[in-house]
Amino acid sequence: MQIKKIAVLQGDYIGPEIMNSGLEVLEAVSQETNFEYQIHKYPFGGEAIDCCGEPLPQSTIEGCKKSDAVLLSAIGGPKWDKAKIRPEAGLLAIRNELGLFANIRPTKVNPILARKSPVKPEVIQDTDFVIVRELTSGIYFGTPRKQEKYEAIDTSRYTVEEIERIMHIGFEMSMHRKKHVTIVDKANVLATSKLWRKVAQKMNNDYPEVVVDYCYVDAAAMKIITQPSFFDVVITANLFGDILSDEASVLTGSLGTIPSMSTGVTGPSLYEPIHGSAPDIAGRGIADPISMIQSIEMMLRESFGEYELADRITNAVEQAITKGIVTPDLGGTATTKEVTTQIIENLRG
Amino acid sequence: MQIKKIAVLQGDYIGPEIMNSGLEVLEAVSQETNFEYQIHKYPFGGEAIDCCGEPLPQSTIEGCKKSDAVLLSAIGGPKWDKAKIRPEAGLLAIRNELGLFANIRPTKVNPILARKSPVKPEVIQDTDFVIVRELTSGIYFGTPRKQEKYEAIDTSRYTVEEIERIMHIGFEMSMHRKKHVTIVDKANVLATSKLWRKVAQKMNNDYPEVVVDYCYVDAAAMKIITQPSFFDVVITANLFGDILSDEASVLTGSLGTIPSMSTGVTGPSLYEPIHGSAPDIAGRGIADPISMIQSIEMMLRESFGEYELADRITNAVEQAITKGIVTPDLGGTATTKEVTTQIIENLRG
Ligand SMILES: CC(C)[C@H](C(=O)O)[C@@H](O)C(=O)O
Ligand SMILES: CC(C)[C@H](C(=O)O)[C@@H](O)C(=O)O
Repeated sequence: MQIKKIAVLQGDYIGPEIMNSGLEVLEAVSQETNFEYQIHKYPFGGEAIDCCGEPLPQSTIEGCKKSDAVLLSAIGGPKWDKAKIRPEAGLLAIRNELGLFANIRPTKVNPILARKSPVKPEVIQDTDFVIVRELTSGIYFGTPRKQEKYEAIDTSRYTVEEIERIMHIGFEMSMHRKKHVTIVDKANVLATSKLWRKVAQKMNNDYPEVVVDYCYVDAAAMKIITQPSFFDVVITANLFGDILSDEASVLTGSLGTIPSMSTGVTGPSLYEPIHGSAPDIAGRGIADPISMIQSIEMMLRESFGEYELADRITNAVEQAITKGIVTPDLGGTATTKEVTTQIIENLRG
Repeated sequence: MQIKKIAVLQGDYIGPEIMNSGLEVLEAVSQETNFEYQIHKYPFGGEAIDCCGEPLPQSTIEGCKKSDAVLLSAIGGPKWDKAKIRPEAGLLAIRNELGLFANIRPTKVNPILARKSPVKPEVIQDTDFVIVRELTSGIYFGTPRKQEKYEAIDTSRYTVEEIERIMHIGFEMSMHRKKHVTIVDKANVLATSKLWRKVAQKMNNDYPEVVVDYCYVDAAAMKIITQPSFFDVVITANLFGDILSDEASVLTGSLGTIPSMSTGVTGPSLYEPIHGSAPDIAGRGIADPISMIQSIEMMLRESFGEYELADRITNAVEQAITKGIVTPDLGGTATTKEVTTQIIENLRG
């Protein structure tokens, strides 16, 4: 078997702390298996601004392109708030450079962690959906975009091809799930949304078993809270996906555990926690490593087809949660290190 | 005192049912007072499509412009789903025609109704904020907007003047509240949002007592659920306001009770419930009239300065809720008629 190349972007503040945990778990789970890999670290975000004057140096782009998967932790923070180019600009750029047009965000409620959710248990039970967010087009990238003295303009532009490829990913995903796709748009106002609906209706012909419904983004923002178990696969545009996937994440009560995947047609996919770099707790050894560990789990599953290793991680993480060996964000008192050690022990046990 | 002219757009499905309730309450509360008014009904939405071939006939525009305030219930529904111009197009048009650039949406949690909220009581207690949404610009109205065979385009455009006038309304409002303004934007991506921030920073100089903070829309979508008591006055662009105000409304557990106001600099303001025309329960006599009654309360307060009458309505509604004389959406068994009668009795009592 070929040795997998994994690009590691360890990021800022709690970034390196949780990345280390994740890599320890990866090492432990793959010992004495056929899965072989190499880690290559590249600067990205704030770290890259400090060392190289820009959040996404050319060498990092090239390193990522040569790899089989990219692991990212979290970037940005107050240190670079006044930087000419902010670390987050690197995020938009890397998506573009690697053609990562689809962002996949699972929202699944773990019954134990659900206690920490702001939403009532009877509302969130059975919640298990995925948001498929278009990531490299729409109002994030459309031109003209300009800020002048007296006015500013942003442009949202979608081509049929861009819509088709993201729909394709969502419809395919639904075939392995409950075969239920919800297109979230604002087709009562936006021209781009009308085109999304048209493409979805056509794609439904290719997936006759899939039940498709259409939901305006304002109604979806309500339904995610009132009836989250309604959803299976949500497909939506860049900006709507940004808002709704963050909204959805709080349902779980466990932001610190949620991974995400960004993917394209060719080239490596990128895996990262959905939370930020948490400057307030950086260096205190209490950052929750589970989101990073789950990002690695997702990588093993989706990029490398290592289902058995992925399942072992899932089980080890669930055991740690069941035992209550978790960090303060999940109501526990364990440190990052203790959680990591516990998960590695569970892997071995 | 001058006789006030009130334009009434009774709308579709449950629209006329709840409008009738509202007008009965208005009649009852203003009896034997100095407040005199005339009602003028105009077709709007689906009703107007049926009678006049368009959702916002010229005569309705003219009637509204001549009035001192506009009451709207709710429009649209399956009957017109295939109409060439949908009823909702009338909504966008009337906002534009009447220059209603600011939409004001209170989110206040009534402790009794809070039981119906999907969010936990300890999270929503003390929630009392207002979303000030820009309503006649941004991506809703910007050009070019076009849907072609292979691509579609929407444009978001804001001028400094448009941003200033909505900010002004929000900052003024905060002066009568907790003097806390949150600007919600996506300034890490959008040029228009960067301009919003610049204008807000400048306006803060004119309101030095007001504490201003800035929140990205994705973070705001989380915070509305996790920490709603953080907010006092939220000022935001058209599309963000659409999404966030609907999201916020479900916190209360009582969609059927929430009014809203749309206003400009000159001309009449428009008052309406935030919910839709509820085709599923139309004609069954069980629609919740409280949102329409509260819309009238808001009109008395904001357009006519009739604070005493408004307070009397507020109290009468609260008594009905406390007694549990409410419609099924609020967990009761009362009909629209019974709730209305109860509220009128409370007014008199
Ligand atoms: C940092 C920002 C540009 C980014 C986005 O809006 O895409 C973030 O919110 C995300 O969702 O990854
Ligand atoms: C019907 C639609 C065009 C409208 C909007 O998006 O403004 C509605 O959602 C609202 O908020 O009043």
